[in-house]
Amino acid sequence: MDNRAIGVFDSGLGGLTAVRQLHRLMPDEHIIYFGDTGRVPYGSRSRRTIVEYTRQDTAFLLSHALKAIVVACGTVSSVALGTVQQEVSVPMVGVVQPACRRAVRETRNRKIGIIGTKGTIQSGSYEAGLHTLDPSVQTIARACPLFVPLVENGRFRIGDRVAEMVVEEYLKEIRDFGVDTLILGCTHYPLLADIIRSYMGEEVHLIDPGAEAAAYTKTFVEPCQPGNGRTEYYVSDDPDSFGQYASMFLGEPKRVQAELIDIASYGTIQKGNKR
Amino acid sequence: MDNRAIGVFDSGLGGLTAVRQLHRLMPDEHIIYFGDTGRVPYGSRSRRTIVEYTRQDTAFLLSHALKAIVVACGTVSSVALGTVQQEVSVPMVGVVQPACRRAVRETRNRKIGIIGTKGTIQSGSYEAGLHTLDPSVQTIARACPLFVPLVENGRFRIGDRVAEMVVEEYLKEIRDFGVDTLILGCTHYPLLADIIRSYMGEEVHLIDPGAEAAAYTKTFVEPCQPGNGRTEYYVSDDPDSFGQYASMFLGEPKRVQAELIDIASYGTIQKGNKR
Repeated sequence: MDNRAIGVFDSGLGGLTAVRQLHRLMPDEHIIYFGDTGRVPYGSRSRRTIVEYTRQDTAFLLSHALKAIVVACGTVSSVALGTVQQEVSVPMVGVVQPACRRAVRETRNRKIGIIGTKGTIQSGSYEAGLHTLDPSVQTIARACPLFVPLVENGRFRIGDRVAEMVVEEYLKEIRDFGVDTLILGCTHYPLLADIIRSYMGEEVHLIDPGAEAAAYTKTFVEPCQPGNGRTEYYVSDDPDSFGQYASMFLGEPKRVQAELIDIASYGTIQKGNKR
Repeated sequence: MDNRAIGVFDSGLGGLTAVRQLHRLMPDEHIIYFGDTGRVPYGSRSRRTIVEYTRQDTAFLLSHALKAIVVACGTVSSVALGTVQQEVSVPMVGVVQPACRRAVRETRNRKIGIIGTKGTIQSGSYEAGLHTLDPSVQTIARACPLFVPLVENGRFRIGDRVAEMVVEEYLKEIRDFGVDTLILGCTHYPLLADIIRSYMGEEVHLIDPGAEAAAYTKTFVEPCQPGNGRTEYYVSDDPDSFGQYASMFLGEPKRVQAELIDIASYGTIQKGNKR
């Protein structure tokens, strides 16, 4: 038994799709979630800034007793995890490797599509992960920078013409390439799954990286004592607004109570004003 | 003569539309620009966070010798300026009052539309400004939360179907209301002016609040000695990426060099980790 908590963080709300899966698979765990809602989105920022924000997010989580950290953010997993995980002693699980393993298991025609933020796609992280597992897979990748703003504005349901048009624009080339598996390489994107499935076709497997990271976490953490299940939520902007949207991501009707923290005061590596 | 600089700040690139106007109207001035590109957008964040970021942006600018600060951000002008300007001794010019004065001067039918970020529209700042100047004007306001992501992704030119569809969706009610004047209440929005003009009709006056704030600043600041004109640019994320886009906003072919600063280290009012 290991009663320490599992930490989870994301740039904003997207990582709650991983928490949803942790609740389903490991209901007895104590989970501490941080959503950096005061600085979302990460996907269009520079590597340097993403690494700095990741250090602060990690330092905040490590102010609690943890047995693992789930990096429930495609951008951080792709751009900053390799650097920051070497600086801490707790295991950090990103979304990239678990999603790649699942994609390679699912594909039949060995054509896999990848969508994510600008930072994620520029990093080439998913292609590298896939080709390490199976050098024969063919990949096609595309940045979808308007998906996070659409989701954060609640515009992800079938019938939203703008969302449907943006999905079509971003995914046309990937569909024409004939993929049978598509990695939704940002934890916001599973909210758009209905529109994406409707455009790509029912036969295309959609891989949810937050869910895969949660499933992978279950394989190696020492479980908590039964009956201890609870989740604490922390954010860097308005907790009320977070509470309003969180249930949509969690798939739970219960309204979430979150606490506001000053994330910039945690774990800053550089001293002084110039970076 | 007053050779101190004029400070200008915005959440990101939008405020450069005010700098463009300052360059045109006051070419001899020393201008110091800060764009909070590491934390853009502000428009969807809570009042508390916007006030905190505004304090830091102001504190950074005040680390230079200034004679005035232009708040080239509709959200900050609407939500935080009233609070923060009482805490500093340098005059701070927001975009709301100058835009309202111009709109009241331009309108013939006394029907004025206002578009802005969620924070700006919820604040009711433009309606209040307009009704103080002329209680008889009729106003209609609408938040346009996807405009900033569209502009920041370079999607604002005629022929971009997604941008055109979003403009139509957001502005339909305002056009049907029959306004003859429309305040583009966020400094990003003038980039969308061609699409907005094409939808609203040539006869509708579009008010650019950054340009109006710059023109108003000229009316009260003691001028610089001629021949001193120069502009320094500071940002909180990748200076290279800022440089790439800045000329588009400035309307100048010359590539801008910006310097990276750690904005969170300036002027934090609260102590400790809990806010």
